[in-house]
Amino acid sequence: MTASAQQNGYTVAILGATGLVGSHLIQILEERQFPVKKLKPLASKRTAGSLINFMGQDITVEEATPDAFEGVDIVLASAGGSVSQELVPEAVKRGCVVIDNTSCFRLTEGVPLVVAGVNDADIQHHKGIIANPNCSTAQLMPVFKALDDAFGLERVIVSTYQSVSGAGKEGMDELMETTGTVYRLMGGPETGHRDEAKAPENRVFARPIAFNLVAQIDQFVEGGVEDGYTKEETKVIHESRKILHRPDLKVTATAIRVPVLIGHSESATLEFKKPVSPQEAMDILEKTPDVVVARNPKDFPTPVEATGKDPVYVGRIRRDTSNPEHGLNMWIVADNLRIGAALNAVRLAEVLVKNNWLKQGSARQEPAQV
Amino acid sequence: MTASAQQNGYTVAILGATGLVGSHLIQILEERQFPVKKLKPLASKRTAGSLINFMGQDITVEEATPDAFEGVDIVLASAGGSVSQELVPEAVKRGCVVIDNTSCFRLTEGVPLVVAGVNDADIQHHKGIIANPNCSTAQLMPVFKALDDAFGLERVIVSTYQSVSGAGKEGMDELMETTGTVYRLMGGPETGHRDEAKAPENRVFARPIAFNLVAQIDQFVEGGVEDGYTKEETKVIHESRKILHRPDLKVTATAIRVPVLIGHSESATLEFKKPVSPQEAMDILEKTPDVVVARNPKDFPTPVEATGKDPVYVGRIRRDTSNPEHGLNMWIVADNLRIGAALNAVRLAEVLVKNNWLKQGSARQEPAQV
Repeated sequence: MTASAQQNGYTVAILGATGLVGSHLIQILEERQFPVKKLKPLASKRTAGSLINFMGQDITVEEATPDAFEGVDIVLASAGGSVSQELVPEAVKRGCVVIDNTSCFRLTEGVPLVVAGVNDADIQHHKGIIANPNCSTAQLMPVFKALDDAFGLERVIVSTYQSVSGAGKEGMDELMETTGTVYRLMGGPETGHRDEAKAPENRVFARPIAFNLVAQIDQFVEGGVEDGYTKEETKVIHESRKILHRPDLKVTATAIRVPVLIGHSESATLEFKKPVSPQEAMDILEKTPDVVVARNPKDFPTPVEATGKDPVYVGRIRRDTSNPEHGLNMWIVADNLRIGAALNAVRLAEVLVKNNWLKQGSARQEPAQV
Repeated sequence: MTASAQQNGYTVAILGATGLVGSHLIQILEERQFPVKKLKPLASKRTAGSLINFMGQDITVEEATPDAFEGVDIVLASAGGSVSQELVPEAVKRGCVVIDNTSCFRLTEGVPLVVAGVNDADIQHHKGIIANPNCSTAQLMPVFKALDDAFGLERVIVSTYQSVSGAGKEGMDELMETTGTVYRLMGGPETGHRDEAKAPENRVFARPIAFNLVAQIDQFVEGGVEDGYTKEETKVIHESRKILHRPDLKVTATAIRVPVLIGHSESATLEFKKPVSPQEAMDILEKTPDVVVARNPKDFPTPVEATGKDPVYVGRIRRDTSNPEHGLNMWIVADNLRIGAALNAVRLAEVLVKNNWLKQGSARQEPAQV
């Protein structure tokens, strides 16, 4: 990173610029006035050539090739695991720092896995790649970190209610199309197309998602203690342990896709070393940045209300009746496209820039100051 | 109960005959060829006079008054708690046995709370009222009972995904209407009514349910260890303990309304006294009546597929990674209008008739044979 780059801003490439998270990345760079000298939207050959708008200017999307990363300071990568597998090392080779939104490098030794505001200091040890956690993990972390610090987290049991936008534009389109089909099949009011309606088909999800639930997100794991888990569920287990620096933490998760467009919600049961009351937990969480607490149970958050917002919303905090002295239940909701993906990526870039941690390995020569 | 009643069948009253569960009660009496001599559909003054069809005959709905129960053998009551509070004692006074689908008498001392096939023997001690459990509790019981018998159930953590039909026809109508509104607002394909669309309103649910989640079912409890729980959640806790005869069982629940029409789904984490493997649990559940097990994780059940079916479907049975030796996670799905309400009520009536337990208090003079 040169002095002029710092003065005038950075060249930022968006890998997967035409996707759902890509468009949110561009929007959030604008919103937060990230110092962008030049924006370089990259995508597959198929969508290269299309235009995206950034700060009032139309910019042509370029094809994502290894050489496209020449001269780029920061890459925000959100084009899927196989694309990151191929292109992220090429970007690193060319001196970029990559904030990767895929699962590709999250558990790789030496790659920091970071939620902004939770474990920022881990970033300074980066070797060119910083991983953005899975959306269902990310929104839990500010809450779990604050409560772990205060009461000593021992065990986590999570059931998720994940929106279709976690599967990208295609997921949202499939929910809308199949909902329309079912609606017409059922003779919904003000529609007269019953004859045209066919039973909805599922392409993106393992089962039809309209007015339904799908108990599979990502592929199933076979063998070992995690036999029968989905990869989405094991991500919550392993990523939580890495982010919280708690390799011993007991975690289990059940990940369910629900017919919601945007916003992931999670029912969490937590066990603590110290005794804890809902009031004490709410007092701690009220002081936690990025967390909004609903003290009155009636003010529970919903995914529709969380959509487009930056905080993690926590409500329904109450004793776990199966473990009333040391346990709490809560309902944690956030916009999965923001905190779970695009917002966190941009905030990690801000941490990089603010701390002068952009140069690969620059921090390794310095004593870590956590 | 007279000898002639036994020979020719029974006079059966449906209290709440014009409601969603009421119509399912009538349909299931037909399906299972319950020996009905005379069907007496009862409802509020507002819907009295309308016709319902039973076994090919139109029958006029009568107003539910105390005297309407004269000469009735069995009452299947599903008209809401306040109606049961008023009219069930009147029916009992007139010699009826009432199978009550409301929460009114479920935890009353001396009132059996029964899931057919789970604790049928409890019925013989009835004093005129038999309670049908809450829908979210009912479908868990065949599974929990079999696993408790085999491995000793110690603790239950449940997160529910409950369909809108749990709130009756009005709940289903609200989901369909508000979904249509959102769909048009978003410019859903093949609809041209964007101008007419207004933001959806919620009347039945605490928040708009279209493409959303509502973390409140029933009212909130204030004070004590259950402070901040909903009544729906405390029903799961207390009804499970009563049905399983396990007053010591550790239970907690989070109840969430999801935009699904019919079918309740539940993510359950169970702890056992004995060590248990998923294979052992699946072997037990495969032999359990009324339970269908998906051994392959890919065959997980969904509420749409469970709709209109009688069994409880269990899938995603796997180790609890936070308690791998003694814990299991599973996904339990059933048609809430059938097993959770109408089917269970009719099956309880079958148990009454088959065991000659219909006469109030008749069993109390005899030694209990469990």
